Amino acid sequence: MIIGGAEDKLKDKIILARFVKLAGGSGASVVVVSTASSLGEEATDLYRLLLRGMGVARVTGLRPLTRDQANDLDIAMALEGATGIFLTGGNQLRLSLVVGGTRLGQAIVDAHLRGAVVAGTSAGASAVSSHMMAFGASGATPKHRMAQMSAGLGLLQGIVVDQHFEQRTRLGRLLSVVAQSPSLLGLGLDEDTAAVVHHDNSLEVIGRGAITIVDGSLMVTDAFQAKGHRPMMVSGAILHSLPSGFRFDLDSRSLLPHLSEVSDRGRRLAESAGKRLHRLARAVAAEGADSFVVERKRRRKDEEEASE
Amino acid sequence: MIIGGAEDKLKDKIILARFVKLAGGSGASVVVVSTASSLGEEATDLYRLLLRGMGVARVTGLRPLTRDQANDLDIAMALEGATGIFLTGGNQLRLSLVVGGTRLGQAIVDAHLRGAVVAGTSAGASAVSSHMMAFGASGATPKHRMAQMSAGLGLLQGIVVDQHFEQRTRLGRLLSVVAQSPSLLGLGLDEDTAAVVHHDNSLEVIGRGAITIVDGSLMVTDAFQAKGHRPMMVSGAILHSLPSGFRFDLDSRSLLPHLSEVSDRGRRLAESAGKRLHRLARAVAAEGADSFVVERKRRRKDEEEASE
Repeated sequence: MIIGGAEDKLKDKIILARFVKLAGGSGASVVVVSTASSLGEEATDLYRLLLRGMGVARVTGLRPLTRDQANDLDIAMALEGATGIFLTGGNQLRLSLVVGGTRLGQAIVDAHLRGAVVAGTSAGASAVSSHMMAFGASGATPKHRMAQMSAGLGLLQGIVVDQHFEQRTRLGRLLSVVAQSPSLLGLGLDEDTAAVVHHDNSLEVIGRGAITIVDGSLMVTDAFQAKGHRPMMVSGAILHSLPSGFRFDLDSRSLLPHLSEVSDRGRRLAESAGKRLHRLARAVAAEGADSFVVERKRRRKDEEEASE
Repeated sequence: MIIGGAEDKLKDKIILARFVKLAGGSGASVVVVSTASSLGEEATDLYRLLLRGMGVARVTGLRPLTRDQANDLDIAMALEGATGIFLTGGNQLRLSLVVGGTRLGQAIVDAHLRGAVVAGTSAGASAVSSHMMAFGASGATPKHRMAQMSAGLGLLQGIVVDQHFEQRTRLGRLLSVVAQSPSLLGLGLDEDTAAVVHHDNSLEVIGRGAITIVDGSLMVTDAFQAKGHRPMMVSGAILHSLPSGFRFDLDSRSLLPHLSEVSDRGRRLAESAGKRLHRLARAVAAEGADSFVVERKRRRKDEEEASE
């Protein structure tokens, strides 16, 4: 679970609630890893308070600050039995430099493999994949030498994550990194927005903002020239901007049906074809609209249509 | 000629110099239309000073502020003999509301058709096309009801222009407008960056920044739902970010060879094939690199390669 930072902690807490649910609800055992944060134990305390308030029985904290500490057997063992691991924000390089390739790093990967949910927010989000956006400049236009990549914790493959995406205007650096590494799919997460990556490698968007996906598989670029810090030529990048409820297949790099359509399809299949035709014909006659519009209206009665 | 605003006026003046050249150099007769600007005659005076300083013999100003004035025969006649028309920045709605569909508006279209170069900067850039970005909100993520479009001056068809693109973070609104109107190609111009649109409908990028091109022809979107001001789903937008020297075919919506490659190709064609093979073979042997790299190096000796 990849969170774009600044997830809501006061109101409906959609993202944290999903984390708690995936970790097992009241039976969850969550370990907060706060290595990335410069706030010390405060970051752990904040999430402990929040998660306890949401009914999680057991919340512990881990804060190794050196690779020696992250290689400590006791620290690595602390993840045994964890059903959820939460990587706080801060500086993703500190997290990956301290934890990547250590016993703790391996324990996080192992926990993920055995089914524990691993969530990272902000810096913690950047660090979950094998390739990590280390740091870079802001701006919408891609430029040469704009961003640097390093090795992350390796929970997810084939993607590179950027966070605070809209708020800090990071499209340029994501485009430039994908242009240099078109085998990676670029994910840019707005604040208070998260990607839930399911076991089938489908991604589900939740939260207030959108996730920007940059697919460079058909890209033409001059990224290999590294011309100073000048604008980089990028042509043919495929861009997706997906708000809450939309899903994306990370393997085929394509949009999946909206969640509401999936549940709707189940309902429609249950309904006999004859009945449906009859109802549609009646609806069309009544509204003078095509069936597509009627379908949409039926599904989203609460939402206003642009044409109205 | 579409300029993203804030074109350099003090140093090498690449964009204004191109305008002067296209308008006929010292023999040019330029009319500055400053209706968009709130600065009054100051905007005209600024460009008069600049263009005279660059050798243009004749610079006059037009500043109709009502449709009556823009329908005045004398004002429309003032464009006769003009080889260049310059539309200043300001508020594009003021420009299109006053000039669009008037005698002056038609005179600008006619002048363009007979070969005069028409340049618009900032608001003037937005107004050149048939469909104009009227105003909207900032941000990288597309949202419903984020921007409004109105009718522009109609010099160019099939595009919608946004300016100050990177500086004011306008990708979101350009994506949302293209999602609503996928027949239009979205052009986002950074400051001090211009698109020279040639008669064959090819676009050439000049200046310091980049031009972002959004092609929605394969887009899937929920733009038709106009859900309040929430993020808009956009999937499969094709994005190009083109710095100076790159060219794009507005009709086929595809990248054209870089200008340096075109001139290089001319040179290579002149060179006999045998000689070229011989030289390449020698270069490959000497450098242990493939011919592609050698070709690039030969063309861009002055530029550093990423792998070095």
